[in-house]
Amino acid sequence: MTMPTNMLTFTESGNWDETHYYGIEKILFSGKTKFQDMMILKTRAYGKLLVLDGRVQSAQEDEYIYHESLVHPGLIAHPDPRKVLIIGGGEGATLREVLRHPSIEYVAMVDLDQEVVERCRELLPEWHQGAFDDARSHLFYADGEDFIKNTQDQFDCVIIDICDALEDGPALELYTEKFYNEVKKHLRPGGVIVVQAMELYGLEYKDHVTVQQLLRQAFRSARSYTTYIPSFWCNWGYVIASDDIDVSMLTQAEVNERIKSRNLESILRYFDGETYTHMFSLPKDVRRVLALPPQARRDVA
Amino acid sequence: MTMPTNMLTFTESGNWDETHYYGIEKILFSGKTKFQDMMILKTRAYGKLLVLDGRVQSAQEDEYIYHESLVHPGLIAHPDPRKVLIIGGGEGATLREVLRHPSIEYVAMVDLDQEVVERCRELLPEWHQGAFDDARSHLFYADGEDFIKNTQDQFDCVIIDICDALEDGPALELYTEKFYNEVKKHLRPGGVIVVQAMELYGLEYKDHVTVQQLLRQAFRSARSYTTYIPSFWCNWGYVIASDDIDVSMLTQAEVNERIKSRNLESILRYFDGETYTHMFSLPKDVRRVLALPPQARRDVA
Amino acid sequence: MTMPTNMLTFTESGNWDETHYYGIEKILFSGKTKFQDMMILKTRAYGKLLVLDGRVQSAQEDEYIYHESLVHPGLIAHPDPRKVLIIGGGEGATLREVLRHPSIEYVAMVDLDQEVVERCRELLPEWHQGAFDDARSHLFYADGEDFIKNTQDQFDCVIIDICDALEDGPALELYTEKFYNEVKKHLRPGGVIVVQAMELYGLEYKDHVTVQQLLRQAFRSARSYTTYIPSFWCNWGYVIASDDIDVSMLTQAEVNERIKSRNLESILRYFDGETYTHMFSLPKDVRRVLALPPQARRDVA
Amino acid sequence: MTMPTNMLTFTESGNWDETHYYGIEKILFSGKTKFQDMMILKTRAYGKLLVLDGRVQSAQEDEYIYHESLVHPGLIAHPDPRKVLIIGGGEGATLREVLRHPSIEYVAMVDLDQEVVERCRELLPEWHQGAFDDARSHLFYADGEDFIKNTQDQFDCVIIDICDALEDGPALELYTEKFYNEVKKHLRPGGVIVVQAMELYGLEYKDHVTVQQLLRQAFRSARSYTTYIPSFWCNWGYVIASDDIDVSMLTQAEVNERIKSRNLESILRYFDGETYTHMFSLPKDVRRVLALPPQARRDVA
Repeated sequence: MTMPTNMLTFTESGNWDETHYYGIEKILFSGKTKFQDMMILKTRAYGKLLVLDGRVQSAQEDEYIYHESLVHPGLIAHPDPRKVLIIGGGEGATLREVLRHPSIEYVAMVDLDQEVVERCRELLPEWHQGAFDDARSHLFYADGEDFIKNTQDQFDCVIIDICDALEDGPALELYTEKFYNEVKKHLRPGGVIVVQAMELYGLEYKDHVTVQQLLRQAFRSARSYTTYIPSFWCNWGYVIASDDIDVSMLTQAEVNERIKSRNLESILRYFDGETYTHMFSLPKDVRRVLALPPQARRDVA
Repeated sequence: MTMPTNMLTFTESGNWDETHYYGIEKILFSGKTKFQDMMILKTRAYGKLLVLDGRVQSAQEDEYIYHESLVHPGLIAHPDPRKVLIIGGGEGATLREVLRHPSIEYVAMVDLDQEVVERCRELLPEWHQGAFDDARSHLFYADGEDFIKNTQDQFDCVIIDICDALEDGPALELYTEKFYNEVKKHLRPGGVIVVQAMELYGLEYKDHVTVQQLLRQAFRSARSYTTYIPSFWCNWGYVIASDDIDVSMLTQAEVNERIKSRNLESILRYFDGETYTHMFSLPKDVRRVLALPPQARRDVA
Repeated sequence: MTMPTNMLTFTESGNWDETHYYGIEKILFSGKTKFQDMMILKTRAYGKLLVLDGRVQSAQEDEYIYHESLVHPGLIAHPDPRKVLIIGGGEGATLREVLRHPSIEYVAMVDLDQEVVERCRELLPEWHQGAFDDARSHLFYADGEDFIKNTQDQFDCVIIDICDALEDGPALELYTEKFYNEVKKHLRPGGVIVVQAMELYGLEYKDHVTVQQLLRQAFRSARSYTTYIPSFWCNWGYVIASDDIDVSMLTQAEVNERIKSRNLESILRYFDGETYTHMFSLPKDVRRVLALPPQARRDVA
Repeated sequence: MTMPTNMLTFTESGNWDETHYYGIEKILFSGKTKFQDMMILKTRAYGKLLVLDGRVQSAQEDEYIYHESLVHPGLIAHPDPRKVLIIGGGEGATLREVLRHPSIEYVAMVDLDQEVVERCRELLPEWHQGAFDDARSHLFYADGEDFIKNTQDQFDCVIIDICDALEDGPALELYTEKFYNEVKKHLRPGGVIVVQAMELYGLEYKDHVTVQQLLRQAFRSARSYTTYIPSFWCNWGYVIASDDIDVSMLTQAEVNERIKSRNLESILRYFDGETYTHMFSLPKDVRRVLALPPQARRDVA
């Protein structure tokens, strides 16, 4: 394989134990917003790539896996989702997936960083596909916690699609039990919350488990699920929680039935009944670390 | 994070589109055998790592995922496995997992490369854990195809655990329909074949699909399954095939029941009924590429 | 040392034998001109970096070394340089250095690529420092060979500051004896030509020697000289040639005297009499490869 | 260029600003001695490479540049060197170069680390070329400072060829004025000391300047000189000091005359009169930082 003329690489999580480089064809955007560093890179392997504060958010070639996994388990679990709140999700792809459900009447999308959203709107049309222009979409530039405290609205589903909880990143306060309890007050009966929740597999799970545990404390039911994201090079975890339903109790047939009745069958590329089973059936080593009592978790490999 | 004093790295599949480096603490062995390059590296992230012809074979920290996924679906699917043939598997961990099933009476392990096996025996005790010394183990240094042509034995399960089908590697002839048909002649009634079969996910599946298709032509039933291997940074595919049984038809309860009756419950770290469901429930995008007619596969992303 | 948040790297001459990465802070420009790929990168170690077709041209922190070494030996060797021709030199720093000599009346700078020059003018003010606006500067966008064939002008010094002679780059025809003979026709009596001429040290010298040999055939005197350029990580070679003078015959005192009489003493950061001695005194192993008969050169390490 | 099958790399001075990788063909040795980490690597670009505590010591392809530059300026400056002390120099190549001078009667080589010396003797014959077996060679395994304090011997030349002064490396105490004063007591009239002294060029000079300053305080004359070492990717500095002679005052002709009279003309590959001029003629920017008053040095780029 010939080396490209302009050999640029980007590496996300540089440590000396292992390193992964993305070959970069072009820098579509690179700058500092009011809140964070932002880059939109054209990679050789995965198409465009959104990077915030040095962390990969999603890639053009497989964002469908990330976003379908984030949105559809929750919305399919709900028999009639009408009002949805998205916190984060600047690319507009979470919004896009939510709007596919025909019962949706209103989606509030709250992102801290107006410039990120505007740049994505301009440079990542493959992600949002016009979702921002849908009459049901309502965009707010605000801190997620402030928004949820101040809004009078109640939602059928709240989706937390924010950066990983880095020590000093803007998203830190959104990974707390306090915040989840605030969300809870704004869920309608039967409502669910879904949170993107970092790496989840036998060798790497601590951050996920922390999030999952917070949600278990705040809600009656909290279930982890996982899917492999090629451009992240790992299995990614999500947590879905609710006081009213256990989303993992659906059968494959029920999932497929709801997909069909909502006319999503030909639209969804990743999610369906069997995918749902795949995502919610966790390997034994993962279930073991999820079941450990809180205090023991950090000491187990 | 401080850089280690001796900063050695190993990269497997160097291409300019994306690159992954393993940080190396120590080279435990590096040399040329009669058939291939061999290295045993001590990585910073995954413990020891076996590399043949520049391709990662397995890593100490997560070989349990790779080997349990390779061995147990086939042996659990069989109600009473007694005679097993392993082709490849030089580390001895495939052998180790096979021997865990109490019904096993005889395992033939056939590896082309005596020096690889001997080095693994000496330097990778965490893998084989004494399996080579088990009285039921019978080790042959031979070409897999030659062995199967010449043996009079019939097996309940044949496990193909060889290097990926690189263009000029020693394993090429073992990825052919001819070879699979030869295997078939040496399967007892109810017998199954399992093949490790490379990357399998929505963006990378072509080599897997080729193998799966060959097995579908040779056997009445051939099922792909997949699991995430952290040290491979990707979802790995396997194919299990048989003329007599469809291994994917077991229920979780049946899998757990057989594990229990064979006293494997406390031994297995990765595989059980729910893991089985996870592995055999394939995401929609993967099922789509697996279902394409042979001639169209290469043109679909 | 903490890893920066946005870990971008650029590598110039990627080969598997050795690789060098520049850590990148920011991409100031990246695009395709009519003739070549162009990037202006902000590196962590060397400030801004100009890259054409994947080849580093010069870096902010040490371009003074590259450009003073290119310009001043030739102009100091000439007792009264008035008219100078620069071919290439898009950054404007070669022009800047030429204009420092008070006797200069007219400088023609000929660059193939208008967009490169305009981008440099806009984004690399530290290089040109306003040189393009000097009334003595005359900028032409043309092929160097065409320009020299068609011009009626005669010059005291011609400086070839173009990309390395990559196999299919735009600069290939400017590394030929034919071209050098054309230059010769446009040199006034006492005139000199200076050519930037790639790596020059005991382990890497072949491209340089080729250029030097071509100039030796075209001119009565052709002398190699060398200087270490930190951002190139190597010793760089230049060739200076003339029919009338042997530039290497100046004494340190003469060089310093001319620098003083031209009021350059406080301006030059790298070049003076002792630097001149350093550059023109070549180590024994380098002199050996430069002295080999043409046909034997390729076979000597 | 095809990627090699076994893609191992070594990087010395990993920082995120710039990184250099050596492609590794083979690990000839890797282990911990009593004092330090030691590796002998077979690189793709430079042949064998000796690495101590993660720092490159010398490479097969260009150790002749490093070692001739270290040894010959001092020994040629001395009209009749008979007794020499080498501190460090485990590879044996410094010893080899010293022994080339026919007047040499006795060389003491003192290295802290017996295992390093023995491994080099076994694995790096290209370096020592039998020098350890020369009857004039006397090998001592001892701390350099202890040795010099306790010896009754006086020397014509003392060569300090030890690791860079890393913060906690074994060589730290050998970069002190106290140590240099101790050396001084063991120099015969006309004696010189030579110290390998790290990077020296306009962008990187602080460690060198520290060493040079210590030697300037300890001796009447202390001169820096420099040479480009390809496998170090930079210009390397040395300091030569004496109370009796200023080694930089020799003419090229005198250097060549002494080389000739000692029958070294056909043996030396790098050093001769012109090389000597090259090494001792320092560029203006380097002279500027060397001349700064001690307290100001750290604040100047």
